[in-house]
Amino acid sequence: MYPDSLEALIESLMVLPGVGRKTAERYAFHLIEGEKDATEKIIASIETVNQSLTQCKICYNYADKEICKICSNQNRNHNIICVVSSPKDVFSIEKAGQFNGVYHVLKGLISTRKGVMPEDLTINELLKRIDENTEEVILALSATVEGETTALYVSKKLESMNAPVSRLAFGLPIGGQLEYTDDMTLMKAFEGRKRMK
Amino acid sequence: MYPDSLEALIESLMVLPGVGRKTAERYAFHLIEGEKDATEKIIASIETVNQSLTQCKICYNYADKEICKICSNQNRNHNIICVVSSPKDVFSIEKAGQFNGVYHVLKGLISTRKGVMPEDLTINELLKRIDENTEEVILALSATVEGETTALYVSKKLESMNAPVSRLAFGLPIGGQLEYTDDMTLMKAFEGRKRMK
Repeated sequence: MYPDSLEALIESLMVLPGVGRKTAERYAFHLIEGEKDATEKIIASIETVNQSLTQCKICYNYADKEICKICSNQNRNHNIICVVSSPKDVFSIEKAGQFNGVYHVLKGLISTRKGVMPEDLTINELLKRIDENTEEVILALSATVEGETTALYVSKKLESMNAPVSRLAFGLPIGGQLEYTDDMTLMKAFEGRKRMK
Repeated sequence: MYPDSLEALIESLMVLPGVGRKTAERYAFHLIEGEKDATEKIIASIETVNQSLTQCKICYNYADKEICKICSNQNRNHNIICVVSSPKDVFSIEKAGQFNGVYHVLKGLISTRKGVMPEDLTINELLKRIDENTEEVILALSATVEGETTALYVSKKLESMNAPVSRLAFGLPIGGQLEYTDDMTLMKAFEGRKRMK
């Protein structure tokens, strides 16, 4: 029904999260009818991201350079490390604007179901960052089975190094994903964080 | 807060219709975290569309070749012409599956507010398609002020050529856009279409 090239564009857009056929059609029409500049900008920025986006050598967050903006910021407390599962979570916490330490991105959560083992994550790299200056390691992981499992595993490793570990208060709704949590709840969760025994 | 290249991608995606910052962020993360194949497919299909999508020389619908799939289909009745304002409307009507004639895309609607004059549209090209074999010209235009104005203008031109003109029944909700109408309403509107006096 659609010209083949248009049909191909619609189908390619349906891989985006939450985008069904109807929405993909709207986007496709916008891309071909809208300003050419805007469309070219999208293509250019996807290509730039593919080429230049890398991961920070310290915290494994996304970065444009070897070291990300947060790790290279001397106004932040580098002795407080907030451990998250993915870069999305870093951006969620930054948006809440409450935390002034640095991050460590695990790049996943331990999951027997998905076959993700501790060695698949950046846990060893986290342990190497711990020294006698480390004031606190905050585990900011989702309140899901996988988040709990990972928190338990990481906290045991850290305790054996005598690092002070805390985790976010259960301001997070149980079963909820960290990335969808609103700023206020995230802030409360930061304030009420508890030392892990 | 985001790396510059990621921020640029998010902002470029916000030009899509109905996409705010939060959705653009989700799309951007999907594009950088999802399968590389899928992302490359989107880029490739936008580029293919930009290069190969053209307009049909007969009806002004989108086409991959000089003549679109509908105009080159000999199983359709080429003596019944359905007049619509944009290619989107062609696809909406095709989806309803009720109409077996051909189309004419006006490429807009007369609008004093937006400064669109009759000569900016493909009205002359429509009149050239009318001959003694023409059985019916169906005006399928939105039930808005601009749709009404255009229908009146086009019907007068067609009547002066003795072409039988009808328009969609008011199954269309008043003030509604044709492209958002559901299949059933569109079908009813086709069935109940009335000859213009």
